[in-house]
Amino acid sequence: MTMTRTSHAFAPPVMQARRWLEGVTFAAERPLINVSQAAPAQIPPEGLRAAIAGAAMNETDAHLYGAVLGRDDLRAEVAAQWSAAYGGRIGARNVAITSGCNQAFCAALAALCDEGDEVILPTPWYFNHKMWCDMTGLHAVPLPAGAGLLPDPEQAASLITPRTRAIVLVTPNNPGGVEYPSDLVRAFFDLARQRGIVLIIDETYRDFDARTGAPHDLFTDPDWNDTLIQLYSFSKAYRLTGHRVGALVASPARLAEAEKFLDCVAICPNQLGQIGALWGMRNLAQWLAGERAEILDRRAAIADHMPRLAAQGWELKGAGAYFAYLAHPFAESSDALAPRLVRDAGVLLLPGTMFTPEGDASGARHFRIAFANVDRAGIGTLMDRLAALDGPGWPLAPKGPSA
Amino acid sequence: MTMTRTSHAFAPPVMQARRWLEGVTFAAERPLINVSQAAPAQIPPEGLRAAIAGAAMNETDAHLYGAVLGRDDLRAEVAAQWSAAYGGRIGARNVAITSGCNQAFCAALAALCDEGDEVILPTPWYFNHKMWCDMTGLHAVPLPAGAGLLPDPEQAASLITPRTRAIVLVTPNNPGGVEYPSDLVRAFFDLARQRGIVLIIDETYRDFDARTGAPHDLFTDPDWNDTLIQLYSFSKAYRLTGHRVGALVASPARLAEAEKFLDCVAICPNQLGQIGALWGMRNLAQWLAGERAEILDRRAAIADHMPRLAAQGWELKGAGAYFAYLAHPFAESSDALAPRLVRDAGVLLLPGTMFTPEGDASGARHFRIAFANVDRAGIGTLMDRLAALDGPGWPLAPKGPSA
Repeated sequence: MTMTRTSHAFAPPVMQARRWLEGVTFAAERPLINVSQAAPAQIPPEGLRAAIAGAAMNETDAHLYGAVLGRDDLRAEVAAQWSAAYGGRIGARNVAITSGCNQAFCAALAALCDEGDEVILPTPWYFNHKMWCDMTGLHAVPLPAGAGLLPDPEQAASLITPRTRAIVLVTPNNPGGVEYPSDLVRAFFDLARQRGIVLIIDETYRDFDARTGAPHDLFTDPDWNDTLIQLYSFSKAYRLTGHRVGALVASPARLAEAEKFLDCVAICPNQLGQIGALWGMRNLAQWLAGERAEILDRRAAIADHMPRLAAQGWELKGAGAYFAYLAHPFAESSDALAPRLVRDAGVLLLPGTMFTPEGDASGARHFRIAFANVDRAGIGTLMDRLAALDGPGWPLAPKGPSA
Repeated sequence: MTMTRTSHAFAPPVMQARRWLEGVTFAAERPLINVSQAAPAQIPPEGLRAAIAGAAMNETDAHLYGAVLGRDDLRAEVAAQWSAAYGGRIGARNVAITSGCNQAFCAALAALCDEGDEVILPTPWYFNHKMWCDMTGLHAVPLPAGAGLLPDPEQAASLITPRTRAIVLVTPNNPGGVEYPSDLVRAFFDLARQRGIVLIIDETYRDFDARTGAPHDLFTDPDWNDTLIQLYSFSKAYRLTGHRVGALVASPARLAEAEKFLDCVAICPNQLGQIGALWGMRNLAQWLAGERAEILDRRAAIADHMPRLAAQGWELKGAGAYFAYLAHPFAESSDALAPRLVRDAGVLLLPGTMFTPEGDASGARHFRIAFANVDRAGIGTLMDRLAALDGPGWPLAPKGPSA
């Protein structure tokens, strides 16, 4: 068989999971609870929709090619808001707009790495990061998360080789839901700088961080851009998943390299999505604060319902951003259980095996729940269904020796 | 210096050319004529804009993630219209929607090739094709166009090695403007099938072909999808450049591979662009016929004005799609002349060197004019300005021995 770039990567997990729904019917009184994908299921506020619609009707440049690195006004707005939020100096020339945050990640690696280079990814990892490494000839070097799902900088240091180009952190974390402490992020930054590699920090879920104030102090370093690349998505904050808008924050020199990649895979980000994102940034701060409060309440709902699940042997490993990461009590692997959950519980979620290296025992023991899609009452129903799982398809794992 | 994927590729030519405008002012009575980029400068018809605006206001799925390979309705519409236009059997499962046609090309190569493989590109080539090969570890093997800017299948055959995965044709051609004869396209298809490689045919400009009927018969072969991949862009036909919508037509198995790549670089094409493209396909056939007539008239205007330029030593090598490809009479290379043209003639165009391998003498002798942006009167002015070039910066090349 001829090998191709894509033959080195697995199929998109979210599309795989959708296939588990085929042929399954759900009673009206017991509909499917879909917590598989991190995606708002509701549309943006009317003002934002009206801004997009108005631009579509009346603005010429909403329909024409724009600059590869995005619209000047949106780049400047990100720079200004980031400078204020992180207490640092970020200029418009440090910001590129991309067609979603996944694309920002791809562009960053294209600007940093060549065939055979290595990138350190804490596990459980975000599957698209792993897929992209696999299909572009990079080695994704797993850094297994330790206690509290936190990666250890010392362990990371031991994994660095002459081929290592970057360490990637996702905080708040997907899939783990953990918010990395500021000093942990700083330790990774210091390590990266000391070893002459780059720290990529994916802050897609920054707007839903439970902490107030800046989640890290990296941008206060006047030379941050020698070591740091930050990724962001407008999709979650402003409900723009279908519009594909993200950002890449880096040095102008690295953005000039990323520009070559973006010119080939996108030419430019679509204009209406950028117009919507800008309108959101300028007008939705108060609304977004409400959204954050709602997500934090849903996160609290997960914790509130855990005692019942814990009594069945479940364990909550992390909850934050859009995600809860749970250890299940069953004997079988999560990837065998997940399709069966659709039939037996009417729940679609993703198994930990989708977020861990092949053969990693930890992935088999966990599920990711994208709880942001479900309100407090729905989370109660979800947890009821999980707590009720037993019977022939659901044998429990043997207890450890101390149990 | 650390090599990276992007360090193997040159900077985006269109962005480079924009920089030649910096610091140059144009008198009001002699404005810049910009024929550098193949892009409609006008907005889509009102009905299409209203369709996008209406969806933005009222349709939930216009704002949410969609399938990686695009909307079912648009895939089905392409399949139906293509089946009718090409007289073949193309199903919705043969069609993927991408975020522009460049992305379709990138996805196709990711699904076909691995590090170190070879792809045959006729020259002059489309620069993004060359850039993408360079930054993904592929060897772009140049196949110099012969008489009439047509590539020769026999010459292509001699370039095929065990590492060759595909031959790429762009017809109507960018930058050459040539429409490849149906039997030439068929000869390349037969060659590809015989040698077990793929023919990628980029038909971005198909809607502006001067010929009536199908431009080739490849889709009439019931097994076309073992050998053929077709690329298309909605940008030119419906003035949707700023919306990023293209298509990739291939076997379902190859689309399943491309899906992995698209999941990482895009997740899904943006929804509003797809909604606009579908509305255009369903409602703008008559309008598009008028657009085509206008482009063909502009192409005729180029030919009408050529005698004056020919008297100065210019030669028209190809005119079609959005492009005229001209040999200039000057001593210097096109890449040195092009920035000077901005100052001396108020004309921004791209030098042939941007479309040819480094050191290729042919590129130095040519310019590409993207004439579609300029109406018949503007083309007259453009040709006047080119015909008037002389003086110290414009020494003529020595004539050949027969002159």
